[in-house]
Amino acid sequence: MADQNHYAKIPEPALRRLPWYLSYVKLLKSQGETIVSSTQIARKIDVSASQIAKDLSYVDIHGKTRVGYEIDDLIYVLETFLGFTKTHRAVVFGVGSLGAALLSDSGLEQFGLKIIAGFDVNESLVNKKIHTIPVYHSSEFIERNSSMNARIGVLTVPPGYAQEVSEYMISGGIKGIWNFTPFRIRVPEGVVLQNTSLYAHLAVMFNRLLS
Amino acid sequence: MADQNHYAKIPEPALRRLPWYLSYVKLLKSQGETIVSSTQIARKIDVSASQIAKDLSYVDIHGKTRVGYEIDDLIYVLETFLGFTKTHRAVVFGVGSLGAALLSDSGLEQFGLKIIAGFDVNESLVNKKIHTIPVYHSSEFIERNSSMNARIGVLTVPPGYAQEVSEYMISGGIKGIWNFTPFRIRVPEGVVLQNTSLYAHLAVMFNRLLS
Repeated sequence: MADQNHYAKIPEPALRRLPWYLSYVKLLKSQGETIVSSTQIARKIDVSASQIAKDLSYVDIHGKTRVGYEIDDLIYVLETFLGFTKTHRAVVFGVGSLGAALLSDSGLEQFGLKIIAGFDVNESLVNKKIHTIPVYHSSEFIERNSSMNARIGVLTVPPGYAQEVSEYMISGGIKGIWNFTPFRIRVPEGVVLQNTSLYAHLAVMFNRLLS
Repeated sequence: MADQNHYAKIPEPALRRLPWYLSYVKLLKSQGETIVSSTQIARKIDVSASQIAKDLSYVDIHGKTRVGYEIDDLIYVLETFLGFTKTHRAVVFGVGSLGAALLSDSGLEQFGLKIIAGFDVNESLVNKKIHTIPVYHSSEFIERNSSMNARIGVLTVPPGYAQEVSEYMISGGIKGIWNFTPFRIRVPEGVVLQNTSLYAHLAVMFNRLLS
């Protein structure tokens, strides 16, 4: 419990920055470095050294004054803290082009997301496999998930179905929804929601390119 | 020029919300609705009606007091403003699992992003096609882009190469970089950068699920 309370304390912006530090520190390791300071990280990443030190204070690591962090320790602690070393079972709802693309992205598994099945209502996709991952009819989800025990649901259905499908996923045991649709779904308290709106990023890019 | 200055004025958070409104209004249209008010949008989306009205004031549309917006007009104006109705030519650098997945995601084209080629240094990928899109050797980019004229570069290389490859893309005419790596690249002024860190979203979800 103490550990869980500790986890819960980190603010989301800090949490979102930790993967940047991890990425940079892994790069340093690949270059043969063994020690890194927050000042050194700050020079490469648009975050101040004091913010970096503060962010890292949420994870269980302590740098040595005027020396820095042991890179191996820092990588281990960050990967563990971020949950990248555990396996989190997930399903994908909506095996259209983006959903199918995510089923094919084996890179997610390196970060701890193991997609174990896709679900769709399109009969031409059902009972086929995409890159070794089976696709089932959506109507089978609740029964199948009673044994599969996926806790994360990736939402890539057409926006008009996003709310309804997310409620259905939750009724089948999903505790975290990764919403790729541009629709703003609502989830009950206790369910974790992350929105990744590729189209919003595109909109910003297109708009700024015009300027 | 007036038009361009007008475009430049909208703050990024407002710009990011516009695709949510668009998505919801398209859903209403599919349900046969013809008029929508900001109050009605607010009820479905976690944004206040006054914020919605303010966000929509940046685009060239005017609602009627106590009536609302014509849905067809609103869709047209939003899609145009967001750049989804134009074709923006893009290339993908790094045809690993995520890069290949993006080459396969034809959904992006519906939002105006047309990926015309992939580039990689892996000889086993070069001169092949992924879903009709050709993959070339990275060293050919500058020459090829002098005729392809892609202005957007999607960055899906390993993080250790992210900075170097983004500079290379810029030298070949890329004006906007969509960075999917967890590495914080730096770009010169005038180049548009959008970061989509799938891993940061995963990290937040994993961490919150633990709590």
